Amino acid sequence: MQPYAIAPSILAADFARLGEEVSRVLEAGADIIHLDVMDNHYVPNLTIGPMVCTALRRFGISAPLDVHLMVTPVERLIDDFLAAGANYISFHPDACVHLDRCLQQIKEGGAKAGLVFNPASSLDALDYVLDKVDLILLMSVNPGFGGQRFIPSALDKLRQARRLIDESGLPIRLQIDGGVKQDNIRQIARAGADTFVAGTAIFGQKDYRAAIDGLRRELEARD
Amino acid sequence: MQPYAIAPSILAADFARLGEEVSRVLEAGADIIHLDVMDNHYVPNLTIGPMVCTALRRFGISAPLDVHLMVTPVERLIDDFLAAGANYISFHPDACVHLDRCLQQIKEGGAKAGLVFNPASSLDALDYVLDKVDLILLMSVNPGFGGQRFIPSALDKLRQARRLIDESGLPIRLQIDGGVKQDNIRQIARAGADTFVAGTAIFGQKDYRAAIDGLRRELEARD
Amino acid sequence: MQPYAIAPSILAADFARLGEEVSRVLEAGADIIHLDVMDNHYVPNLTIGPMVCTALRRFGISAPLDVHLMVTPVERLIDDFLAAGANYISFHPDACVHLDRCLQQIKEGGAKAGLVFNPASSLDALDYVLDKVDLILLMSVNPGFGGQRFIPSALDKLRQARRLIDESGLPIRLQIDGGVKQDNIRQIARAGADTFVAGTAIFGQKDYRAAIDGLRRELEARD
Amino acid sequence: MQPYAIAPSILAADFARLGEEVSRVLEAGADIIHLDVMDNHYVPNLTIGPMVCTALRRFGISAPLDVHLMVTPVERLIDDFLAAGANYISFHPDACVHLDRCLQQIKEGGAKAGLVFNPASSLDALDYVLDKVDLILLMSVNPGFGGQRFIPSALDKLRQARRLIDESGLPIRLQIDGGVKQDNIRQIARAGADTFVAGTAIFGQKDYRAAIDGLRRELEARD
Amino acid sequence: MQPYAIAPSILAADFARLGEEVSRVLEAGADIIHLDVMDNHYVPNLTIGPMVCTALRRFGISAPLDVHLMVTPVERLIDDFLAAGANYISFHPDACVHLDRCLQQIKEGGAKAGLVFNPASSLDALDYVLDKVDLILLMSVNPGFGGQRFIPSALDKLRQARRLIDESGLPIRLQIDGGVKQDNIRQIARAGADTFVAGTAIFGQKDYRAAIDGLRRELEARD
Amino acid sequence: MQPYAIAPSILAADFARLGEEVSRVLEAGADIIHLDVMDNHYVPNLTIGPMVCTALRRFGISAPLDVHLMVTPVERLIDDFLAAGANYISFHPDACVHLDRCLQQIKEGGAKAGLVFNPASSLDALDYVLDKVDLILLMSVNPGFGGQRFIPSALDKLRQARRLIDESGLPIRLQIDGGVKQDNIRQIARAGADTFVAGTAIFGQKDYRAAIDGLRRELEARD
Repeated sequence: MQPYAIAPSILAADFARLGEEVSRVLEAGADIIHLDVMDNHYVPNLTIGPMVCTALRRFGISAPLDVHLMVTPVERLIDDFLAAGANYISFHPDACVHLDRCLQQIKEGGAKAGLVFNPASSLDALDYVLDKVDLILLMSVNPGFGGQRFIPSALDKLRQARRLIDESGLPIRLQIDGGVKQDNIRQIARAGADTFVAGTAIFGQKDYRAAIDGLRRELEARD
Repeated sequence: MQPYAIAPSILAADFARLGEEVSRVLEAGADIIHLDVMDNHYVPNLTIGPMVCTALRRFGISAPLDVHLMVTPVERLIDDFLAAGANYISFHPDACVHLDRCLQQIKEGGAKAGLVFNPASSLDALDYVLDKVDLILLMSVNPGFGGQRFIPSALDKLRQARRLIDESGLPIRLQIDGGVKQDNIRQIARAGADTFVAGTAIFGQKDYRAAIDGLRRELEARD
Repeated sequence: MQPYAIAPSILAADFARLGEEVSRVLEAGADIIHLDVMDNHYVPNLTIGPMVCTALRRFGISAPLDVHLMVTPVERLIDDFLAAGANYISFHPDACVHLDRCLQQIKEGGAKAGLVFNPASSLDALDYVLDKVDLILLMSVNPGFGGQRFIPSALDKLRQARRLIDESGLPIRLQIDGGVKQDNIRQIARAGADTFVAGTAIFGQKDYRAAIDGLRRELEARD
Repeated sequence: MQPYAIAPSILAADFARLGEEVSRVLEAGADIIHLDVMDNHYVPNLTIGPMVCTALRRFGISAPLDVHLMVTPVERLIDDFLAAGANYISFHPDACVHLDRCLQQIKEGGAKAGLVFNPASSLDALDYVLDKVDLILLMSVNPGFGGQRFIPSALDKLRQARRLIDESGLPIRLQIDGGVKQDNIRQIARAGADTFVAGTAIFGQKDYRAAIDGLRRELEARD
Repeated sequence: MQPYAIAPSILAADFARLGEEVSRVLEAGADIIHLDVMDNHYVPNLTIGPMVCTALRRFGISAPLDVHLMVTPVERLIDDFLAAGANYISFHPDACVHLDRCLQQIKEGGAKAGLVFNPASSLDALDYVLDKVDLILLMSVNPGFGGQRFIPSALDKLRQARRLIDESGLPIRLQIDGGVKQDNIRQIARAGADTFVAGTAIFGQKDYRAAIDGLRRELEARD
Repeated sequence: MQPYAIAPSILAADFARLGEEVSRVLEAGADIIHLDVMDNHYVPNLTIGPMVCTALRRFGISAPLDVHLMVTPVERLIDDFLAAGANYISFHPDACVHLDRCLQQIKEGGAKAGLVFNPASSLDALDYVLDKVDLILLMSVNPGFGGQRFIPSALDKLRQARRLIDESGLPIRLQIDGGVKQDNIRQIARAGADTFVAGTAIFGQKDYRAAIDGLRRELEARD
């Protein structure tokens, strides 16, 4: 299993002060910065594109930038985010006909590649490409819709994905996104997740360090 | 004719410090803040969605926010930008089957409505809705593609649009976007434009006030 | 000009008793039965398909059935409505790339062909096919959206279309649809319409004959 | 297993007398009224929308209305059919990216939610949402195409689905649609179906009661 | 006016011997080789892609290759045909949102750019880009459908286009495609065409030279 | 297992001399002629349509023509290739909503039906239609992209597919396409393939017979 990583989603940050927000959350202990990219076609919402990634790099952010593409098609934006300095680029199998090719495109571009699974999606898409995947992201809410709670069946899917990863012996991160909070992160970690996206659970709090420390304490107390 | 207005496009601003950038450009004399919204479907690029508009309002920006939708379809994003506090919402006639309805949707939502014309698009779409339009935006470059220069045939189209507006007696703004700089803004104003989108011509300069003053001097010297 | 015709839209009828409703409205003096076909793609609503046309024929309705396609693409449904016994089939130019071909398809199938214009659409699509058109339908509300009122700019467009038809010398019907009522039909007729779609203005009334007579009285009083 | 239910499909009824047809078939012993909604995009046919559902309710029909959406996208029509009084709303997993979300949408709207599987579709889509599903509909013909016979591999899939349902302990209906007749319904019931859509097998007969009784006799003789 | 040019369409040639066919038709006096590229989306047919263009170049064909794109979108195929050695690339305005940009793309790639107009399409798309156009192609049949005859209203449109070109003083070719034969080419030339696509009128004949000479004789006899 | 068959892909042949190329490769020992049909929508490339199939038949080619559809939708082109004389027609499950229906369409048209699986696609689509399938084609490169090498995970999938076929007892061909060469064909055959598509490995060689003999020697040496 990969070491635990906390990945605040900047969707919940103050966009008028994004550089400062990201700096503060990194100083507060965040490991990875998560970007939710929506195009109003794959999901019913439009958020941000590659220019935000570029701006963070220019601002001096050197932490890993982890891009979750909720877009279709994915090909052109993969190239744009590679150029913008993304470290992880993940996409949904059902948003991409040439899945194997897109994983190659990301890796040839120098980034790590991820596949994302909606709450109801089976993990079958991993069957023939597990060796090309660096990150598996399981959605525990439906992407693009607001105000949702953690969907319990995600725990089963985490266990399944954990088994797949462990059996493969590959250094694949298992990421969870949606409704992760201090009161359920321990249970989520027990089910196998090692990378935790959190939005309002961090950026919605006054004290980012306290919020991240709170999550970490739960993780350490896992066993 | 409406009084001249300078509308810096935040696409050229530093996104890591957006609130500060916008504040500074307003203090430097900008009249309107222009937002270029692209969805990677109507144009080959993805930029920003309603959350950026919301963030600017929360930051305390009270200047008019002028949203140029380069998206298709437009209906859902019109509602989202109305909720986010936009003052002007403009869209492309060829991105919208129910043009009259979308103009109504914007106006019933309390914003001003605009129609945008690509460099090769005729102005025919104005024929039956001129009385529902508050702003006509003529593109003098192709939207969504970088590194282009002002397309000269836009001057003819400005003259045509100016004539339409003047004959109607309606208080419609005539906006131009693409390649506007200090050395051509006077000619553009003579052709009939009253509202000027400028990206790098302002945000690409060290001194925003000097840049805006430079544009205004040219406008005053127009006659 | 073609003789006046009243065309009740069955969208406003009681669908549980459609045969009876249509019979009653014909006995009450209706000339043509109008069917609004929506596919939830061209417009945000789904209504009825060819089977309703077939059912009316089997019920014994022999009056002209006038089908307004608010669908895209149109090719397959044109064939289906030809087989179902439609007399008029109309479609929107912006829902069809091969407009000339689709007009031919309708006429070779033995029906009369119409083109429909949304409130903001220019009449340019008629320029090279006027000789293949039997009916021009102008929308005076936006199709597919409920609760709208007659859009005044439709009167200008009616006058323009009337001029086109009269100059051509062709026996083309000029139909209007949207917000037609007893208190505006006279003005609409004066602007050039000869065929009047009416929904709730007829089916929303208790006495269909009174409703239709009311409309006709206004038409006779036109001059 | 749920008690047997016969669900006549009104696609085969006389649309000119729909209220009467539905009343008669209910008096003749039908349990549920099945509506086949096609949009000419998911399937090559256009049938009926929410207004027919509304009309049946206004006519006084209080029996369960069971809506099978053969449309894409499904989101807007789900809302429309909820408002129109549908009791069951089912859709195809491959017509909907956000499957979990759409199931929630139906249930929050007060209706029961179903998933539909084309003849060649695997049941994998049930894996993580079985607890949100009230009805599983297996197609034993290809939806939207006429004149087809019961596809034998549907029997295997029925057995599989029956096993899934029984193992879950959940009160899920297992519905079958396509080519169900008196001479095969017993075999179909043995394979696990409890809810039977029938079109011409009922509405195509002179005596609805005799037709339904014939089907029921076969079901009772099952064991 | 440009000198007359005969442009045989290889769609009517023997595809098993394409190099030989093209050589023979050039020896027989053809000026330009016309390629009809269809993608089964813009038109209901799939024909050939860039590889055929490449093969002709490798075979040693050095005559101008004139590519008519009946595809949507056009951007990627423009690049592919530029690389394959096309001299003219034409596309339909309604297949391309960024018309001005695509004309630029063709010209920057070293080819000549054309716009194509379906039988019912107005010439408005030329209004702001006439100076970027090297060829105007008017369709006198509906593209992608077989067995059609020359549509008479194309003659009026030819006259209109001829006027536009002559008034502009630009060296723009005016091409006609569809149903051009020995018995109507004179009339077509009189209406203003200077470049004539012919399919079966040439490749359908035993003696290509006789066929081309026959067309030329008519052209010379024009006055 | 079916007897080995070598299927040269004409995509690698000289298109200016296609009849001759195909004749030569058949004389050199090829068993089946493979046609790669791309529409620039399912894959980023446009190649050839039914007319090439027709031309080969007219040229006198009577060998089996094996059409791989990389297009979406597939329905219309299935009919066109049936009319053009295709013997095998294969398509991708994710390019077709009504998979069972399209298999029927091919078989009712008198051809053999195939399903094609991209490198990352699971074989689940075979579950309920194996008895309607005559050929399973596994892609060992991503279709539509140039310059790729054989993807190793295809060997596992071959073994899986071989097992499915052998257990079914059905006479289904197991075809492989992508990067098949003399130095890996033996290994590929051992994994279960019996039909081998080869492009440049045959048409890229000077001596077609030597190339095919080389592949066959490897196949014979398999055990």
